[in-house]
Amino acid sequence: MTQSAAIIGGGVIGAGWAARFLLNGWDVRVFDTNPDTQRKIGEVLENARLALPGLYDMPMPNEGALTFHDTLSDAVDGAIWVQESVPERLEIKHSVYRDIQTYCSADAVIASSTSGFKPSQLKDTAIRPEQIVVCHPFNPVYLLPLIEVVGADAKTLSRVKSILQGLGMFPLLVKKEIDAHIADRFLEAVWREALWLIKDGIATTEEIDDAIRMGFGLRWAQMGLFETYRIAGGEAGMRHFIKQFGPCLEWPWTKLMDVPELTEELIDKIASQSDAQSGHYSIRELERHRDANLVGMMRTLKARDWGAGAILNTHDKTMNQTGSIPETLDEVSDLSLPIKTVDRAVPIDWTDYNGHMNEARYLQAFGDATDRLMFIIGCTPEYVTKGCSYFTAETHIRHLDEVKAGARISIETQVLLGVGKKMQLFHTMYEGDRLLATGEHMMIHVDLGTRRASNPTKEVADQLGRLVSEHAKLLLPEGAGAAVGTR
Amino acid sequence: MTQSAAIIGGGVIGAGWAARFLLNGWDVRVFDTNPDTQRKIGEVLENARLALPGLYDMPMPNEGALTFHDTLSDAVDGAIWVQESVPERLEIKHSVYRDIQTYCSADAVIASSTSGFKPSQLKDTAIRPEQIVVCHPFNPVYLLPLIEVVGADAKTLSRVKSILQGLGMFPLLVKKEIDAHIADRFLEAVWREALWLIKDGIATTEEIDDAIRMGFGLRWAQMGLFETYRIAGGEAGMRHFIKQFGPCLEWPWTKLMDVPELTEELIDKIASQSDAQSGHYSIRELERHRDANLVGMMRTLKARDWGAGAILNTHDKTMNQTGSIPETLDEVSDLSLPIKTVDRAVPIDWTDYNGHMNEARYLQAFGDATDRLMFIIGCTPEYVTKGCSYFTAETHIRHLDEVKAGARISIETQVLLGVGKKMQLFHTMYEGDRLLATGEHMMIHVDLGTRRASNPTKEVADQLGRLVSEHAKLLLPEGAGAAVGTR
Repeated sequence: MTQSAAIIGGGVIGAGWAARFLLNGWDVRVFDTNPDTQRKIGEVLENARLALPGLYDMPMPNEGALTFHDTLSDAVDGAIWVQESVPERLEIKHSVYRDIQTYCSADAVIASSTSGFKPSQLKDTAIRPEQIVVCHPFNPVYLLPLIEVVGADAKTLSRVKSILQGLGMFPLLVKKEIDAHIADRFLEAVWREALWLIKDGIATTEEIDDAIRMGFGLRWAQMGLFETYRIAGGEAGMRHFIKQFGPCLEWPWTKLMDVPELTEELIDKIASQSDAQSGHYSIRELERHRDANLVGMMRTLKARDWGAGAILNTHDKTMNQTGSIPETLDEVSDLSLPIKTVDRAVPIDWTDYNGHMNEARYLQAFGDATDRLMFIIGCTPEYVTKGCSYFTAETHIRHLDEVKAGARISIETQVLLGVGKKMQLFHTMYEGDRLLATGEHMMIHVDLGTRRASNPTKEVADQLGRLVSEHAKLLLPEGAGAAVGTR
Repeated sequence: MTQSAAIIGGGVIGAGWAARFLLNGWDVRVFDTNPDTQRKIGEVLENARLALPGLYDMPMPNEGALTFHDTLSDAVDGAIWVQESVPERLEIKHSVYRDIQTYCSADAVIASSTSGFKPSQLKDTAIRPEQIVVCHPFNPVYLLPLIEVVGADAKTLSRVKSILQGLGMFPLLVKKEIDAHIADRFLEAVWREALWLIKDGIATTEEIDDAIRMGFGLRWAQMGLFETYRIAGGEAGMRHFIKQFGPCLEWPWTKLMDVPELTEELIDKIASQSDAQSGHYSIRELERHRDANLVGMMRTLKARDWGAGAILNTHDKTMNQTGSIPETLDEVSDLSLPIKTVDRAVPIDWTDYNGHMNEARYLQAFGDATDRLMFIIGCTPEYVTKGCSYFTAETHIRHLDEVKAGARISIETQVLLGVGKKMQLFHTMYEGDRLLATGEHMMIHVDLGTRRASNPTKEVADQLGRLVSEHAKLLLPEGAGAAVGTR
């Protein structure tokens, strides 16, 4: 039977919870007196449907049913999980808990999204205090895994953990309740420091964001604070790092003071916790993991021309000025030979469990070669903006040899056909002189409005024609025209 | 002519600078009295060679020459950039600057990696103070773009920026010098807060790292603090966010106090800076960018089974239990039909500038289908660990229709051949009933030790044989055996 969750309070956080439950197959029952709730949840849900399922390599369950209710009593009816995300005022929370507990099942989990209140404060006036637990999420709730769980007794905790894990979340048990739990203590410290920097005219919001996302933000996304610093300590380890940077605690490196004394006992505690956490990796292994994570994340941002990735794209353009990859037909040194369309290193994240470049990355590189050939004949991003492009209709790849991360590969492209809507290309991939693969591709020119085949503009057709007549003098490359399994 | 950089101090940071310069085509001249310097720089350089070039889609310049020098005077000879990364003690820095300025060109830039000292402190006893500028990098220096630039006059600044950009870095000008510049003020505030949490027994180093990397670390890697909070304010914007969360400043949300007063003037300043930074996007657009960045970065971590990505992999396994994708031959409901080997949503980061799933992602999905079929016949990760696998030798894809992000696709797999070292598969991809593509693949069984063709184990051969004899009764699928451009 489908399980039901009640969402009490349908703002940004409540809506994120609703989406997380629905997409994991739960029925969701929403109560919020704001007349705009239905629209807002609909919009968050639309974002979540686009983003969350693609994170998995398996189908998610069928989406549950979303219903809106006029009364709280109706919303909590039959719910085994009640998520409270009402405004952060204690008297409101207390009143809402009285209502929830009057109507909900005594077996239901009542979870609070509160970022600031301690569970003891929430349970203060409750009918069944043991039913209430803090489950503090992070926006966007439908994507980020972290949930801080505070104030659950052993029996409730195991149920809470199992349900949250079933939603794909990462429940982090906060063992002692404190104001703002764990993560928000950092967020608040950074927020306070940022306010000083802006007030004192040291930096703008944009400069602060760049100071974060161009540097330590990328480190923290994958390793956090201590594992990063463990690496910074180098071969001498965590204890060395603390000894080296400990004295900063007495320096005016932040306006935020009240600093713990770095006793030998505290240093021991940190160093041994860090060993327990990361000691199964050598520093060199941690560095390799860090670098591979960074390369993959930065290439993701590069594909989206965002943040640190936009910097890489700018740098790419500079490097091409010194490179051998032509941008126009006039830049091609000898039109009677295949054109060099790719010259690059194999990124770390292009390799797979067999220890070599993954088959799909061969096609990605061939796709880049096709893009470059299109660019050279005038099918540029501007041409695409005007509503035309070439789509790949058919591909034949022969994987002839392996290649590893870091190796430099190049691709040469021969045009086999270019007439009307059709363009047939033959790419050959090398590492130095070593033949790695060939790719044969049939491209169809397309009107992006109708998504149907169409003729290219005269300019593009003319440039393609010029290339075709030159390449017609070349021999048909070995492997062209072959089907799988034939020679 | 190749430009030269002198690296004074070859620890983790100096070595990172050396790698960054070398891989961007500069000659690098190192001075460090530590006898271990050569080995350490060699190891960092090895990491950098593997990671940095793959970030680009263009070839990097030829690597410069790396030389080690016994004297500082020799190292700075001919260098137009001198990077100082000696220990953080002012008297050491002053003495090093006297030596550098005695021997280096008066036109060279002398850049300090200092995280704590202000440029005025460094210039204090200098011969030519205007030559010295803070260029504070972040580890790993060869990958992270951020450089805080402090204390350069207008003429030096334009030169420094141009050289750093030429190295692919992001120079962030810090307009007023303060202790620890900008980023390290945040790092220090977080470090101080973390020490309290550990000292007070609230959380361990591992719990703190998880609290960061499972949540806000992923946000900060792409947007930083303010752009993230701009979204959290929702349609009501930054001003609303500050009003809502401003009162926390008076709450005990951190042990770090000395809190700025949230005057109307400060609120105005923040809100208008945020408008200037991100006002060209609507909140909805920012949400979509955030989600697409997160999905891409989280899928990167997933492929590496790391951090937030490891959580996704665990969840995937749970979902497969309810899914329709078999893990063994016995789980296949009808052996006489093609086997469903993929059932998934198209991730946001699988689409391209044509607004549909990129051609290489078709092959990625077909590759996943092949992996599943291998798994089903017993070629599991354990089998690979024992030294055997199947490699793809040849691929033929027909792209028959487009598909968009978020759509659910499935793949059915028919075995055309399975004899000796060869296995020939035919995949058909659908969205619902709509045919999207076919993929025909010749696989060769390989000994991972010799990297040569070999026969599979009897167990695998038997299971494959069982499937082959069942699928032999099926018709040859349409498109099988075809070459590019034939019907």
